[in-house]
Amino acid sequence: MKVVVVGGSAAGLTAASTIKRRKPEARVMVFEKSGDVSYGACAMPYNLLQKDKPPESLYALTYKEITEVRGIDYRLYSEVLSIEPQKGRVVVYDRENSRKYIEEYDYLVYATGALANRLPLRGFDLPNAFYFKTLDDLRRVKKFIYEENPKMACLIGAGFINLELADVFKELGMDVVVLEKMDRILPSYEPEIRQKAEEYLKEKGVVVVTSVEVNSFDGSAVDTSMGRVPCDFVVAAVGVRPNGEIIREAGGEIGYKGAVKVNSYLETNLDNVFAAGDCAEHYVRVLDRNLYMPLGTTANKQGRIVGHNIAFPNGKKPFYGINQTSVFKIFDYTVGATGLFTRQLDEEGISWGKSVVDVRTRGAYPGGGKMRVCLLFEKGSGRLLGCQIIGEDVVAKRLDVAAAAIYAGLTVFELAELDLSYAPPYSPVWDPLLVAANQAVKAV
Amino acid sequence: MKVVVVGGSAAGLTAASTIKRRKPEARVMVFEKSGDVSYGACAMPYNLLQKDKPPESLYALTYKEITEVRGIDYRLYSEVLSIEPQKGRVVVYDRENSRKYIEEYDYLVYATGALANRLPLRGFDLPNAFYFKTLDDLRRVKKFIYEENPKMACLIGAGFINLELADVFKELGMDVVVLEKMDRILPSYEPEIRQKAEEYLKEKGVVVVTSVEVNSFDGSAVDTSMGRVPCDFVVAAVGVRPNGEIIREAGGEIGYKGAVKVNSYLETNLDNVFAAGDCAEHYVRVLDRNLYMPLGTTANKQGRIVGHNIAFPNGKKPFYGINQTSVFKIFDYTVGATGLFTRQLDEEGISWGKSVVDVRTRGAYPGGGKMRVCLLFEKGSGRLLGCQIIGEDVVAKRLDVAAAAIYAGLTVFELAELDLSYAPPYSPVWDPLLVAANQAVKAV
Repeated sequence: MKVVVVGGSAAGLTAASTIKRRKPEARVMVFEKSGDVSYGACAMPYNLLQKDKPPESLYALTYKEITEVRGIDYRLYSEVLSIEPQKGRVVVYDRENSRKYIEEYDYLVYATGALANRLPLRGFDLPNAFYFKTLDDLRRVKKFIYEENPKMACLIGAGFINLELADVFKELGMDVVVLEKMDRILPSYEPEIRQKAEEYLKEKGVVVVTSVEVNSFDGSAVDTSMGRVPCDFVVAAVGVRPNGEIIREAGGEIGYKGAVKVNSYLETNLDNVFAAGDCAEHYVRVLDRNLYMPLGTTANKQGRIVGHNIAFPNGKKPFYGINQTSVFKIFDYTVGATGLFTRQLDEEGISWGKSVVDVRTRGAYPGGGKMRVCLLFEKGSGRLLGCQIIGEDVVAKRLDVAAAAIYAGLTVFELAELDLSYAPPYSPVWDPLLVAANQAVKAV
Repeated sequence: MKVVVVGGSAAGLTAASTIKRRKPEARVMVFEKSGDVSYGACAMPYNLLQKDKPPESLYALTYKEITEVRGIDYRLYSEVLSIEPQKGRVVVYDRENSRKYIEEYDYLVYATGALANRLPLRGFDLPNAFYFKTLDDLRRVKKFIYEENPKMACLIGAGFINLELADVFKELGMDVVVLEKMDRILPSYEPEIRQKAEEYLKEKGVVVVTSVEVNSFDGSAVDTSMGRVPCDFVVAAVGVRPNGEIIREAGGEIGYKGAVKVNSYLETNLDNVFAAGDCAEHYVRVLDRNLYMPLGTTANKQGRIVGHNIAFPNGKKPFYGINQTSVFKIFDYTVGATGLFTRQLDEEGISWGKSVVDVRTRGAYPGGGKMRVCLLFEKGSGRLLGCQIIGEDVVAKRLDVAAAAIYAGLTVFELAELDLSYAPPYSPVWDPLLVAANQAVKAV
């Protein structure tokens, strides 16, 4: 059996590793366009804080581990130019040796990831204009920061990447302005959570300007609909899009928001071709349909499922799906959500209610802080549908309790009955989630 | 309606508050033997670290809030000497005025808590021999520590209270010896967890001696089966027992391990008499029967149920029960468990398996550490039955994810499918619980 994997990042490498673990005799080739093996992209912002820790420290595995220990034929600087599904082969371009060659496959894993949207504006190709999607982007930003010692950063787009970068740049002593085209940040979140995030960013000295249009960048200032914003550099993080080009050209079907359409086994419409990770659709369990929410955890999980399904074609497993869980850090706050957002609930025609509570995070023990918990639930039944939290101390793993509850189909009545751990260093007697659940119970 | 509450701690005060909130016209009298209103006993060890923070800072509410704001007739130094259920009345002893009086009731809440076991040994009544159950105990220990400046503590019993105290006393610069009669510490936990705790305590310089019999204390040393252990003071924490004496004398039925027998509505066998908190039995949901596990969270929950059931006798709610969740801190480690222990699984005749994994707690982000996760599950079905964790970083709220999963009856297959939050400051891509679940799946 010969497997070709297009893209050697999280989903691709995980699929390849799973196949080799289950079927050591399989030949598995991975073609990675860049010069980097799979890395933990989510940690890129924090690498900026560690001057002496090279970007390569984010590699998931060394090249040697991938090739020698795992036995994967992993080829860097190797771009798959086209897929020929009828012939079961791909055309590969070897950038190091400037040559093209053909490889046949029994199975193909399409795992090309996502591409950062570019700003088609004047000046965003200047040396001090950056994106922040790839390890090369990190290298460029890091070099610039430590060589040029900039004082003022202008971040375009108020998504979680730029909010994480705002945190990092402030910690590095810079002033930070964030410019957002929409009239709000964190648009999917409830107003109570968004407002708290805005207040906190302000408190931390990050200037967030909303409803502002960016026109151009001249190297020392951004020209906007609200005037000139001087800065030493810009980082544009204005969303990503699934990289489906090669497979589309080969007749692959495209689904939700440009992502490669997959069935429950992560098979595409092309014979023996699977897709996984940031280029593919993602099954949302509670909606029972595919959406698009590119995240590292999902890429890993889908990669593992694809690997299994290629190794055991007669014992295929469906991808069990996601709960739209995501979380990020801004300074000492954590912001995150799991489950559905109210926009989705409205689209589904679900009658929903919510509870919002502000609570302390610990008992009589030094440290800790406050958090705001928002639960979304179905009116009438009380079924828990979503949870959003912002604040200090342990936010992420409290979201996970809600993620488990939503997975299991629990109601807020049941959530209120959970025996959650209590000791003063970790929680008040009534955990914030229980306080929110007790509040929700009254509003069902 | 007139309600008499015997004992004004967590369960009693919560019951009283719930009744007043639901039925403001009810007359609610609380008789509290001590001079302290309800306090957060779990935070007592940490109050020792805060020299200038008085023990009274642990009060859940001020006396004024209880009486004036909540409208509860809360009487300190008031001991209920006997209950006369046929007559629907209690005999109260007013210790301040040395007088007895009688109060009638429509409903009675028995919430007398637990008593610390005493060591019936010579020397344990000396001024430098302590227990650590009540706020008065805290006062005595704190006074001694800050006035006498002791250098060496001997703790008798290796339960979680003494392990928390070992942590606190070390932080205060003392040497600490813990003497345990049994051949192990944390006897309910799996060997893999226990062993880790032992190693860690040793690393932290706490001397834990097991299989040792204590004979006596002479004020400057403990005489044991292994020889003389010199010390400046001793704290004995050798378990607690439910305080069921008064109700038993009144004909109240005693159930599991001396706790007051209650039905699902927390009613005792006496008419209109409820029991809640550390004196009562505790329903364990997954076993569908009452056991005894005195904890502050449970006392609060039971108090609330009792309050509801007295306020709404025609709309009574059953106590939904506990999952045996508990957690405590030793230095930078957290130790905790939820669900059933293997001793219980064996008693139930359940065929069980386990997975144990050692994992890092974060992604590529400074800080964090390692934790060991142990999952217990039913062989064959894979139903999750228990989770024990020891280690650094966020342990408690990861236990809560398992608590939610056990409540919902999830299997380890399902646990492995949870969409748990990931960002490098909070978790590796595969959360430790997912790693443990993936391991468990192979052993079902």
